[in-house]
Amino acid sequence: MSQEPHTETRPATPTAHIASIGTALPGDPVDNASLAKMLGVNEEWIEVFIGTKTRHFARDLATGEVRWSLADLCARAAEKALYADGVDASAIDFIVLGTATPDTLMPATVNDVADQLGLDQVPTFQLQSGCAGAVQALSLAQTMIASGQYRTGLVIGGDVCSKHLDVRRDLSDAAPSDLVNFVLFGDGAGAAVLTAEPAGQRIAVRHVLNRFTGLGRKAGQVIEWFGLADRHDDRQALTEDYKAIEEGVPVMAVEILWELLGELDWEADDLDYLLPPQLSGRMTRRITEELGLPTAREVSCVADTGNNGNALPFLQIEKLLGEMSPGEKALAVAVESSKWIKAGFALEKI
Amino acid sequence: MSQEPHTETRPATPTAHIASIGTALPGDPVDNASLAKMLGVNEEWIEVFIGTKTRHFARDLATGEVRWSLADLCARAAEKALYADGVDASAIDFIVLGTATPDTLMPATVNDVADQLGLDQVPTFQLQSGCAGAVQALSLAQTMIASGQYRTGLVIGGDVCSKHLDVRRDLSDAAPSDLVNFVLFGDGAGAAVLTAEPAGQRIAVRHVLNRFTGLGRKAGQVIEWFGLADRHDDRQALTEDYKAIEEGVPVMAVEILWELLGELDWEADDLDYLLPPQLSGRMTRRITEELGLPTAREVSCVADTGNNGNALPFLQIEKLLGEMSPGEKALAVAVESSKWIKAGFALEKI
Repeated sequence: MSQEPHTETRPATPTAHIASIGTALPGDPVDNASLAKMLGVNEEWIEVFIGTKTRHFARDLATGEVRWSLADLCARAAEKALYADGVDASAIDFIVLGTATPDTLMPATVNDVADQLGLDQVPTFQLQSGCAGAVQALSLAQTMIASGQYRTGLVIGGDVCSKHLDVRRDLSDAAPSDLVNFVLFGDGAGAAVLTAEPAGQRIAVRHVLNRFTGLGRKAGQVIEWFGLADRHDDRQALTEDYKAIEEGVPVMAVEILWELLGELDWEADDLDYLLPPQLSGRMTRRITEELGLPTAREVSCVADTGNNGNALPFLQIEKLLGEMSPGEKALAVAVESSKWIKAGFALEKI
Repeated sequence: MSQEPHTETRPATPTAHIASIGTALPGDPVDNASLAKMLGVNEEWIEVFIGTKTRHFARDLATGEVRWSLADLCARAAEKALYADGVDASAIDFIVLGTATPDTLMPATVNDVADQLGLDQVPTFQLQSGCAGAVQALSLAQTMIASGQYRTGLVIGGDVCSKHLDVRRDLSDAAPSDLVNFVLFGDGAGAAVLTAEPAGQRIAVRHVLNRFTGLGRKAGQVIEWFGLADRHDDRQALTEDYKAIEEGVPVMAVEILWELLGELDWEADDLDYLLPPQLSGRMTRRITEELGLPTAREVSCVADTGNNGNALPFLQIEKLLGEMSPGEKALAVAVESSKWIKAGFALEKI
C-alpha cells in the first residue's frame, strides 16, 4: 500500500478495463410531435429550446402504466454486457449501480437487478446520484479492482425519469423553467463489465475524476421524493435553476477537460474522441463548441435518447466502441448540476 | 496488485482504522407513553411486542414540522467525529454516506453534509441501503483506503424514518403487522473517521462482510417513494413481511457470526464484545440469545434509540469505545431484511 497522501485515482496506471457494454432503452422512441401533443405544449419550442428529437419512456404517459421498472432496464443492459463479453455471471464479484430514481427506497434496485441476473453471494452497492452517478460507479469499481480485493464487476447506471412526469397537469400556462422538466428527460439504462486485466473490448480506464465542488453553492437542480406523511403536500418535486445550469455547466466542463488532460499528461491534440455532457441536444452542442477540440470526434446520444441521467455515459461508450481503434484515446466530461459535481474519465483502447 | 480471484475483503489484514466516532440523535427521547398517545395505540403493546423504550424523531409528530433534516443530523455526527479525533477537515479525502431515507433524490444528502462541514473538492458517495448501509459504507471506505488511492475518510450513516410516519392516520383498527411500522423506528445519524494508519481510538477494521443473499427470495421489507406522477395513489408505502423477518433474521445472524469467525480464524471465545442486529429491543434480545456467546459482552442501543437504520452501528461502536481495551476484539452482525443482505464487521483495539 502506498503511503503518500493523495486524494484521487492515479492517472496513467490502468487498474481496470472495460470489457463490454450493454444498454437498454424502453419501448419505441417518442418524437417531439407526440410529446408535444401528450403534454399540450408547442412542438417547435421543444425543438428549438431543448434540441432533443426523441426519447424513450418506461411508463405509458397516456395511461400512467409502468411498463418497465428501473430494475428491468438495468438487468436487460447488464445481460447484454455479460453476453457481449461472453462473461459467465459467476465471474462477477461485485455490482455497483448509480441512479437518481430508484424503484423503491428499499430494497435498493441493485438487489432486484442481481435477482433478475441470477446473481447471489456478491456485494451490491447502489449510489444515489444524478448526472455524475455513472462516473461515480465507475470510480468506485475502478478503486475496488485497484484494491486487489475484487477482480470483475458489473457497473450499471440508469434512470426512470418519467416517474416524475405528471401528464395530468395542465401545462398550457407553465413557465419555460418548469416546462423544461417535462421535455428534457428520458428513461434508460446501461452497464459495463469491468475487469482487472484487459479483456473483450480492451478499454483501459486511465483516470476517473469525481469531485464535489458545491461548497457554498445553491443546488442547481433538486428532485424531492414524497413519503407517506407528506405526499399530499402541494409542493413542487422538481426545481431547476436553469440559468445557473446554463451558465455554470459549460464553464465547469472546460475546467474538467483541462484538469483531466493535466492529470493524464495528455495534450488536447492527443484526443481522438470527446464524450461531452449530455444535458440536452442544444446545451451539448454549445458545450462541445466551447470545449474547442477540433481534432476530437464528438460522441453524443442525447438528441436521440433524451437526458436519461445515469444511462448516458454507457450509451456514449457503446457508440464509441463501434469506432475506436487500438491506441486511440477518449475523454468523457460530465457535470452534476444538483450540487455541482465535476466528473469525467479517460479511456484508451489497448 | 494481487492476482488470485477472491470476492471479499481479506481478513486479518487491517487496511483501515476507526480513529473516532460521533453520533447525533434529534431532540428529546420520546417514551412509549407519549408515542402511544400520539398514535392512539396501546402503550403496553409497544413495550411487550417491540421492547423498545424510547426513540428520537427529527420531525415534530404533532405538527409535522421538520426540525432536523438528515443532512443536519449527519453533519452534526460528522463534526463530533472530526472534533473527537482532532482531525482537521482538510485531511478528509472522501465521504461515504449510507441511508435509506435521503432528504431529496437530488442533490444526494452527502453533498449537503459536505457543504455543512465546509468540505469541498473531495469525492462524495451516497449508498442507498437499509440496515446494511452503514456496513456497506464501512466496506467501501475500507476498500478505498486499501487501494492506496485514499488515506482518510468520513463514513456516515443515518436515517430519518419519521418521514414515513403519517400521524394523521387512524390506527385504532390497524393490524400489528402494519402498526409495527409506526413504533419500530427512530431517527438519528452516526459518523466515523477512517484512517489508513492507526490514529485516535486505534480500532483496526479486521474484516467487513457485505453480501447479497436475496436470489429468489421475496423482499422482507419494502419502502416505496412517491414521485410527482403517483403521489396521490392510495397505496401503502411501507410493507413488511414481519413473519419472514422474525424467522429469517435470527438464522442469518448465526450464519454471519460463524462466517465472520471462520474468515478471521477467530474462536467464539476470543470475542470480548458482540454488536448484534438492532431490529427492536425484543428481536435483539432473542437474536443475542440464539447467537450464544456467553463470554462476549453485548453492545446494543435499540431499546433507547429505536431502529434508526444506518445510525445504529455507529451508536453501538460509540458505546463500545467507552469500554474497549487494547487487544480486545468485537464482532458486529447486521442483517438487511429488505432483500436479504448479510453484513457484519470485526474490530480490534490495537
